[in-house]
Amino acid sequence: MIVGVIGLGLIGGSMALDLKRRGFADMVLGVEKDPVNAAAAKTIGLVDDVVPFEDCVRRSDVVVISIPVGAAVKLLPQVLDIFGECEGEKVVIDVCSTKSQIVRSVHYHPLRRRFVATHPMAGTEYSGPWAAMPNLFDGRACIFANTEDSDPKAVKTVEELYGVLNMRPLYMNADNHDVHTAYVSHISHVTSFALALTVLDKEQDEKHIFDLASGGFSSTVRLAKSSADMWVPILTQNRDNVLHVIDTYLEKMNAFRDAIADYDEEKIESLIHDANRIKKIIR
Amino acid sequence: MIVGVIGLGLIGGSMALDLKRRGFADMVLGVEKDPVNAAAAKTIGLVDDVVPFEDCVRRSDVVVISIPVGAAVKLLPQVLDIFGECEGEKVVIDVCSTKSQIVRSVHYHPLRRRFVATHPMAGTEYSGPWAAMPNLFDGRACIFANTEDSDPKAVKTVEELYGVLNMRPLYMNADNHDVHTAYVSHISHVTSFALALTVLDKEQDEKHIFDLASGGFSSTVRLAKSSADMWVPILTQNRDNVLHVIDTYLEKMNAFRDAIADYDEEKIESLIHDANRIKKIIR
Repeated sequence: MIVGVIGLGLIGGSMALDLKRRGFADMVLGVEKDPVNAAAAKTIGLVDDVVPFEDCVRRSDVVVISIPVGAAVKLLPQVLDIFGECEGEKVVIDVCSTKSQIVRSVHYHPLRRRFVATHPMAGTEYSGPWAAMPNLFDGRACIFANTEDSDPKAVKTVEELYGVLNMRPLYMNADNHDVHTAYVSHISHVTSFALALTVLDKEQDEKHIFDLASGGFSSTVRLAKSSADMWVPILTQNRDNVLHVIDTYLEKMNAFRDAIADYDEEKIESLIHDANRIKKIIR
Repeated sequence: MIVGVIGLGLIGGSMALDLKRRGFADMVLGVEKDPVNAAAAKTIGLVDDVVPFEDCVRRSDVVVISIPVGAAVKLLPQVLDIFGECEGEKVVIDVCSTKSQIVRSVHYHPLRRRFVATHPMAGTEYSGPWAAMPNLFDGRACIFANTEDSDPKAVKTVEELYGVLNMRPLYMNADNHDVHTAYVSHISHVTSFALALTVLDKEQDEKHIFDLASGGFSSTVRLAKSSADMWVPILTQNRDNVLHVIDTYLEKMNAFRDAIADYDEEKIESLIHDANRIKKIIR
């Protein structure tokens, strides 16, 4: 089996590593438009070779699109077009954090059924080939969106691929996926970005931030290191859901603000007790 | 040297452990009003004995007040009162997260100079004697507030104590401390509480939260597990500073909201790039 990975960053690079090491792929071809990243991916040994886009799609049995979702939406139809000129039952997956727009982008494509929309729920705040690491996906959930629109054989191949990565499959409608990830993932990034901006704005003296940052601050602000390339298209593609969650978040924040302004200890206590219920879910 | 620790939770318990293990204390006496916690502290071996408050203060050379700051403000003058009836140059420290009010509480006490106000910047989101752990403080910063109001010999003893815990001392005015910790620590807790409330409110199905929570969400929401006992008095005592930071935070959040609502990719990108500057400070 030849796997082609388009975009050799954190997710694509980590996938390339484990699919080869664990024997799912006999060969991994990479596509990387940034020449520095391409050279790094080869030096680190993420892929067997870095090749041009069309060459990769023609030679691979499974193509993984692991680039920011704005670019992925444009590239996916091109991959299916090339599939149309090739023999064999090739499969393409994407690994993007929003799913509605990408499934819409090929809804009427004649080879739609060769595409399986997925979202492996794993990652770190780092990006680029240097961020790739083995075992990144182990034990995490992977969402499969709208599998009823994909060929069952293609879905089976992709289930095997994620099985090798030790991921738990979850099946979900693309629109529902985007609602839930807005709540659980996208809002966390927005709150972290806003926190970083606040602290950087208020603490002109960076030494103070460094000295006073205990583990709590570091973990809360960690996601603020995430890249704009990845997050601008996620936030605009999932605009309506994200706005809805931000509005609820602003309500909660204002409830805290008012309770603190009023020295209302009972209200603060009850808000914190309510928030503490997250303990039952996240360990 | 006998060390008395009042409040055998995460901070007090962890301090008791390392001060004994590392030879600073020959004996550690504990005070714990919750009988379950007191029994646990003895069983776990955090302290040599759990004794009544007055007994502890009379027998100890150094007293550590490690209870929520609302209660600490009331207890500290009582400790100094008992010192007045004892022989020897006893020292008392607190380890609370706000400093202005506690230093004010004993400003005119005749034995004020036996008190050293400190804030070891270490912890986890857990509480109680079960949360105590060895090596919690190693390598972190410890703030000493208003040391000019303390006896230099008392300060030296406390510097030795924190030296044994491998903490870096930082010297700061109590009011400045409260401004800076509002920016770097207190706001992180409020944003985490608000995030937990948002997600719990929106995702009625807890299974979805569990399944979709990637590492990013877990780390951002981690502080929302923190206890109300500790945080209600911090947020009310540091009300003015915390409100000021919340207002800046709300501005930043609204800037994100507006940019997303307008599909303004350039603005979102510039906000994220600005937020990314936190990378230079927090690794």
